[in-house]
Amino acid sequence: VDLERRPLTEPQVYSLLKEVGAPTPRHKVVKRGEEPAWESFPAYLKIVSEEIYHKSDRGGVVRVSSKEELKGKLKELSEKFPEVEEFIVVEEQKGIEAFIGVKRDPSFLHTVGAGSGGILVELFKDAVFIPLSADKEESLKKLKETKLFKLIEGFRGFKGNLNLFLDFLEKVKELCRKHPEIEELDLNPLFISTERVAPADGKGFTSPPPERREFRELPLELFRPGSVAVIGASNNPAKVGYALIRNLERFRGKVFPVNPKYGEVLGLKCYPSVLDIPETLDCALIAVPPEITLKVIEECGKKGVKLAVVITAGFKEAGREELERELVKRAKNYGMRILGPNTLGFIVPSLGLNASFSAVSPPEGEISFLSQSGALITAVIDRANEEKIGFSEIVSLGNQADIELAEALELATRRGETKVILAYVEGTQLGAELLEFLKRKPAVFIKAGRSSAGKRAASSHTGSLAGDYKLFRDCVECKGGIVADSLEEAFDLCRLLRSYGRLRGRRLLIVTNAGGPGTLASDYAETFGLELAEIEPVKEELSAFLPPNWSRINPIDLIGDATSERYRKAFNVLSGYGGWDFSLVIVTPQSMTDVPQIAHEIVRFRELSKRPVVACLMGGHSVKLGEEILKREELPVYGEPMRAVRSISKAVQ
Amino acid sequence: VDLERRPLTEPQVYSLLKEVGAPTPRHKVVKRGEEPAWESFPAYLKIVSEEIYHKSDRGGVVRVSSKEELKGKLKELSEKFPEVEEFIVVEEQKGIEAFIGVKRDPSFLHTVGAGSGGILVELFKDAVFIPLSADKEESLKKLKETKLFKLIEGFRGFKGNLNLFLDFLEKVKELCRKHPEIEELDLNPLFISTERVAPADGKGFTSPPPERREFRELPLELFRPGSVAVIGASNNPAKVGYALIRNLERFRGKVFPVNPKYGEVLGLKCYPSVLDIPETLDCALIAVPPEITLKVIEECGKKGVKLAVVITAGFKEAGREELERELVKRAKNYGMRILGPNTLGFIVPSLGLNASFSAVSPPEGEISFLSQSGALITAVIDRANEEKIGFSEIVSLGNQADIELAEALELATRRGETKVILAYVEGTQLGAELLEFLKRKPAVFIKAGRSSAGKRAASSHTGSLAGDYKLFRDCVECKGGIVADSLEEAFDLCRLLRSYGRLRGRRLLIVTNAGGPGTLASDYAETFGLELAEIEPVKEELSAFLPPNWSRINPIDLIGDATSERYRKAFNVLSGYGGWDFSLVIVTPQSMTDVPQIAHEIVRFRELSKRPVVACLMGGHSVKLGEEILKREELPVYGEPMRAVRSISKAVQ
Repeated sequence: VDLERRPLTEPQVYSLLKEVGAPTPRHKVVKRGEEPAWESFPAYLKIVSEEIYHKSDRGGVVRVSSKEELKGKLKELSEKFPEVEEFIVVEEQKGIEAFIGVKRDPSFLHTVGAGSGGILVELFKDAVFIPLSADKEESLKKLKETKLFKLIEGFRGFKGNLNLFLDFLEKVKELCRKHPEIEELDLNPLFISTERVAPADGKGFTSPPPERREFRELPLELFRPGSVAVIGASNNPAKVGYALIRNLERFRGKVFPVNPKYGEVLGLKCYPSVLDIPETLDCALIAVPPEITLKVIEECGKKGVKLAVVITAGFKEAGREELERELVKRAKNYGMRILGPNTLGFIVPSLGLNASFSAVSPPEGEISFLSQSGALITAVIDRANEEKIGFSEIVSLGNQADIELAEALELATRRGETKVILAYVEGTQLGAELLEFLKRKPAVFIKAGRSSAGKRAASSHTGSLAGDYKLFRDCVECKGGIVADSLEEAFDLCRLLRSYGRLRGRRLLIVTNAGGPGTLASDYAETFGLELAEIEPVKEELSAFLPPNWSRINPIDLIGDATSERYRKAFNVLSGYGGWDFSLVIVTPQSMTDVPQIAHEIVRFRELSKRPVVACLMGGHSVKLGEEILKREELPVYGEPMRAVRSISKAVQ
Repeated sequence: VDLERRPLTEPQVYSLLKEVGAPTPRHKVVKRGEEPAWESFPAYLKIVSEEIYHKSDRGGVVRVSSKEELKGKLKELSEKFPEVEEFIVVEEQKGIEAFIGVKRDPSFLHTVGAGSGGILVELFKDAVFIPLSADKEESLKKLKETKLFKLIEGFRGFKGNLNLFLDFLEKVKELCRKHPEIEELDLNPLFISTERVAPADGKGFTSPPPERREFRELPLELFRPGSVAVIGASNNPAKVGYALIRNLERFRGKVFPVNPKYGEVLGLKCYPSVLDIPETLDCALIAVPPEITLKVIEECGKKGVKLAVVITAGFKEAGREELERELVKRAKNYGMRILGPNTLGFIVPSLGLNASFSAVSPPEGEISFLSQSGALITAVIDRANEEKIGFSEIVSLGNQADIELAEALELATRRGETKVILAYVEGTQLGAELLEFLKRKPAVFIKAGRSSAGKRAASSHTGSLAGDYKLFRDCVECKGGIVADSLEEAFDLCRLLRSYGRLRGRRLLIVTNAGGPGTLASDYAETFGLELAEIEPVKEELSAFLPPNWSRINPIDLIGDATSERYRKAFNVLSGYGGWDFSLVIVTPQSMTDVPQIAHEIVRFRELSKRPVVACLMGGHSVKLGEEILKREELPVYGEPMRAVRSISKAVQ
């Protein structure tokens, strides 16, 4: 039993709401034995108890229609619950049954949940979670994903006052800011009518706010060192200290092997300690046994190292949390930052810098990849080399004893060469801070640990709806980040975001030489919430040169025998037409299809129209050359309409 | 106004239900001006009207609590609805609010919809559609997808009698069989308690059953001709008649060009008419202008041709439906079948037979691909050639004037060399028949036209929930078929089904050398409804040789430095353990990872364990050789955990 965790009873919740000016239902607290002074019926009579959380499940809630009934039921409840000292009478309300809840999470702190309410809230799971930092507009955008929103807008006799509901949400946020001790809050049901918004119940818990690590901004040049030492450098190819030195061979800065056992490593002079290096040192890669890392960190601190990359494993992940904390504490004394421990290291292709033990480096590019899994980095680099996807930097976060995802991400938003941030996340401790930076640059997250979401016990409705994954996803999306469901989806998206950033508008134009794939593409557009652009204004102009059996609607089917010339003519007309926001061009290899020439026309279409254009080349060998042309021009190309449309929809702001 | 469409009033619906012994609520019909003989309260008083479908939206439903109130409200309703002649009093019921509905669709005929009920049924869309041919077990399997099922099983105070509900469903099916004139039926709400299941409302429509084409079984050898003629053969490379002859060059049967203009085509003797061919003729490819197809069809019929493939376009799709009908009528007179018109043709790689104008043929294999889009076929062949996916046959269905998807699919289930059927579907007219064959062989469908689903107006709740796509998907899945969301997903699945057929069990075992991808895989397992196998019984045995920091749970993380030897040892232990149904082995390229050797071990693991094993090799160049080894052994391999787990889950029976 957590002694510091205290329940909030219904009257206490109403008092809190009144503090911030949020509406409460008409209600009256009645002490045991008191005569209830209540005249308005029907109403609900309920027990007030710190011990009983789900009152209705226990028979602690009754509907009463008259004064006599109220008196009678009060007597009954008093007998049924001899330990209960207070009761509450609450007016009956009408309207849409919603819920608003608060959950406090150590990473994201307070989030406000909202959605359809009632006792089936956990069955239908119609809920979104909104971080405190979201403004009214961001909250509304997220709220639009719920069925509750459709009810408020008006659905089969239901209708609610959206503004009053949004105001209520804002008041709950204010309440959280004023009362950091609120751990959970359940306002369920909460009734929304056209005139009024008020809860019909309220409960929750308070507890001392969680202790959190501090967000510490990283210096801009931290991952751009001029000199790197490898502590634990080795001439033994089986050792990590060998791989590290070998990987630094192409580094355009200075490299200093450090190891008292050697005079030279791989042809470089080797120093007994960093303190013996005669020049300034920016970065140290540490690959020594865990036991001597503290000594090494002290020396690095004295030397004025800015970044210590602790490759060494065997810390928190092996139960040695104390050693890990001590490492950070010592580094802090010198103002030095630590990456890791248990990290693969980091890579900056533009500097020829592979400060990791990954055998390969990726091409130079515009994606900053931050990963909490080292193994994933090696797989990604291998794939990126094949697909010619480039990176501005790759950072393996390891145990995050010091440098945390949120800090690394913040730094990446400040790097000029980075256009897109890609992050593989298992967990973050600085979720609330992370959200602050998502507007600066497009960021794509792969969040692992979905399956653990449901496993945590939760006493409140709100708590049970907000698993780690759901919270992360909702908060990140609310503040402008993107959560991808798979690595493939994430890469598809990165290629699009690198070329166009976040997209504006919703109107998709589809041009194709095959009906089937065009239909599939429009199916996906609907599934992913895009609109098909209206082409009525250019229909006549297109009909002038297209074959009589062309589709005459969007998707624009140019028919299977479309040549590059026909694509070109269609593009000319469509470039001058303002009725679309982005376009998907589908090409299937038919007998008349000159794929490479059409690829050139697609590039030209993008130039002419000055809008984002994405291609889908379907097939194998026949479309390879076309694919290469488009990749060279950084025009996103996919092998399947689903992946193309999904990428567009996810990139839309 | 459709004069043949007649509404069913509530009393009429109850009479129908009684006919098949389905329970109805206690109710009493009261004529205008009559004294209502009703004693049980609370109850509902409603108008009975053929004109007013949504009675409650119009204020035609009131709750009454006493005899006086009933009398008073009856008077009120009589005045409010002067045209209404009958009223009905219905008992108030308690329980879970569900709905059961019937929709008659020209393709699938009657389907029974079921799900959560009440006025928000269209908002939450918690509904499944069950075809009449589904037995009780199949209905239950589908029903388990709904939230209603969770309520019936027991959820926060709700609980219902599942058997009574399933019985009711069966009675509704019986009703549909007895009354083909039922077009729509809405039993909403329908109350389910632990003792009873009964509707609280009932409405619907009747109309004459739709006229439907006949299902005609195709002869087994139809797509395996010994001789093929090309009518409209040409020496002009720009003509389809040239491409057809050229594509037949590798055919191991006989080829006869037909064209009165030529004596020889591409070195083969050319005949003025099929009637001039001196040998028997099985199949004719027709590529002549639409106007002379009738004449050609007559000649083919006289010649005894079994299959006429009408490549020619310009029929129904160009508004010439009459000509298309006539074509079929004439062919029928001779017992000849028509593929097309407007078809690409068909391809049987094992015979070297490319009876299409596609420039390329795919490798020989075990997938039968049926497509309503010709363009898709060319793209698929191109891709298949690159990925070494083989086909037993590819059939372009064209306009389906005669040979329909359901018929072609039925034929494919009888072909020995076909292990998996893949179908691209825009629409089928013989849906009900199609369902009959899905148990025979694994069948994967890609269904286009999702976006049109919502556009059709529907007067009933049930109708509005059952778009074309939803109906198709539910019916096909209910009877054992698989619907894929994209081409990529379909191909991923086909590769797995070809090797293992439909999978049994739900327990997935994951073996990996990287924690991150392992976690992602277990996330996907949960998302897609698989279970993670319990490894407790083999934990000690594995610990004997695995490094101390191995995961000790499933996913089994062998740790990044796992060699092929470590994989092998783990596989040896796991092969002898019966606690899993299928396994996913993940390999990321790390410094100690010998991917090709591990690939061999994965193949051995499958042999030893005698269970389905799937691989996920993550990376690019480093995993290519391993991929090839696995492909050669027909061991399904994917580049990403999501695609692997999705394929497994969809293949599960």
